[in-house]
Amino acid sequence: MLDYKLLHALATVVECDGFERAGDVLGLSQSAVSQRIKSLEVRLGQPVLIRHPHLAPTPAGQRLLTHYQQVQLLERDLRGSLPTLDDQAPRLRIAINADSLVTWWAEAVATICQEEGLLLDLVIEDQDVGLKRLRDGDVAACLCATPQPIAGARSVALGEMHYHPLATPTYIERYFPEGPCKASFQSAPAIVFGPHDQLQHRFLAQCGYHGHFPYHLCPSSEGFVRLAAAGIGYGMMPQLQVGELMASGQLASVAPGHFLAVPLYWHFWRHSGQLIQRLTQHLSRVMT
Amino acid sequence: MLDYKLLHALATVVECDGFERAGDVLGLSQSAVSQRIKSLEVRLGQPVLIRHPHLAPTPAGQRLLTHYQQVQLLERDLRGSLPTLDDQAPRLRIAINADSLVTWWAEAVATICQEEGLLLDLVIEDQDVGLKRLRDGDVAACLCATPQPIAGARSVALGEMHYHPLATPTYIERYFPEGPCKASFQSAPAIVFGPHDQLQHRFLAQCGYHGHFPYHLCPSSEGFVRLAAAGIGYGMMPQLQVGELMASGQLASVAPGHFLAVPLYWHFWRHSGQLIQRLTQHLSRVMT
Repeated sequence: MLDYKLLHALATVVECDGFERAGDVLGLSQSAVSQRIKSLEVRLGQPVLIRHPHLAPTPAGQRLLTHYQQVQLLERDLRGSLPTLDDQAPRLRIAINADSLVTWWAEAVATICQEEGLLLDLVIEDQDVGLKRLRDGDVAACLCATPQPIAGARSVALGEMHYHPLATPTYIERYFPEGPCKASFQSAPAIVFGPHDQLQHRFLAQCGYHGHFPYHLCPSSEGFVRLAAAGIGYGMMPQLQVGELMASGQLASVAPGHFLAVPLYWHFWRHSGQLIQRLTQHLSRVMT
Repeated sequence: MLDYKLLHALATVVECDGFERAGDVLGLSQSAVSQRIKSLEVRLGQPVLIRHPHLAPTPAGQRLLTHYQQVQLLERDLRGSLPTLDDQAPRLRIAINADSLVTWWAEAVATICQEEGLLLDLVIEDQDVGLKRLRDGDVAACLCATPQPIAGARSVALGEMHYHPLATPTYIERYFPEGPCKASFQSAPAIVFGPHDQLQHRFLAQCGYHGHFPYHLCPSSEGFVRLAAAGIGYGMMPQLQVGELMASGQLASVAPGHFLAVPLYWHFWRHSGQLIQRLTQHLSRVMT
């Protein structure tokens, strides 16, 4: 049998991003936490953590964390049938795209969080990265645009979000005086969420443009909207998030009629316990 | 003289988080990009990139990137005095706290972005992590709560943000029927931005509570507010962000009278060129 005290220490170090903070949480000294990680590494014959440049689990450490999370979920089901067992609320680590988090997510999960006493550990990741974290066992479920489930997991379609290329009217007058055209795309500063964000490229391709374009990088959905609303750039924003700004005329499309539909799929491990199953049923119900 | 083609390749690989995407940006094959990184490593006698578990610069690679960014900023000043030089818009990498990004930041920098043709590369980091990235040379400036400048840098006070412990009235009725007390803090699910976020702990300490408490983790300012507004938890939110929700009564304080004032300091390298200087002057002016 594995020593789960050691796995708990590993999970806490990774979650707290540090030995000292993990010690605070576990009520242990920093050196006692180090000792537990070392014991795990001795037992495994290889490192479970990389210390530089960032504290991160090794692939072996990651596999241990996956296992630890699965055991936790199973224990939760056990506690459901044996209510006298010490009942600690589970924290479910979920990778979610930023735009869902700032639009429909909170309303969709509010009831189930209360009913199940569920605590969320949300991780914001774009598309493929979220799925990679699911594969690595770093998260228990993932919300992203990719339909294909990874091996051992399932995916459920939840709907789609519509993205429009928006800016302030003043910005459009300045940078798109002749509508969407090559000259405008070459000079108008765009806003892109991050290096993995392909929406701006897809929009430009839809308009027949494939060249370079200037862009700001802003890895925050709400920050993105604020930059656009301040006239700093234009970018692809979900209608669900900016409906009011569009209705009031503060934001308008730089290319009316153009939009991108991004589907949303919920990915989760097949054998991840009742909590994930209930959450999945709940999301399917509220989203359709 | 260093071969800046190689440094440019390194910066692009790190910015794009991948060799293939960097190749697309540079108009090179993936293997040509790899070759440039290898040349750099041969020249340096040590690796500049770590490939696993995430692509990241080594400390030596980071020092090269710092230097590259400084040279870019100096080149920008040069172009200011020699306008016939090819004028490429600079992208300024800035570490910023999420709450500033979703409140006052966009309005504050809109004018200077337009006037200087400045492109932003915003990185969201809490407090000390942002300052660490400045020290590592990963960002050119950093907005955080720490007053002390790091060696070689300066810091300028910009003001402060006020955080209130907020939840929906229904939530408060359910979890804080007797106001802020130990029993409530032990059972009421809080929302915490991430492992480095100390606001919730500071608030609880202010109330004289030092024990454990259940919490959700949500590393998005806007997502944080959405979770609270959906009744999922309570947490420390900046007045600047939730003024309207407080005025309309959708969010109220779980401990009226309690708030935390978090100061904001702008950190930047002393010798980082005119653009940072102008941005600093601009921020000092608009914020005071």
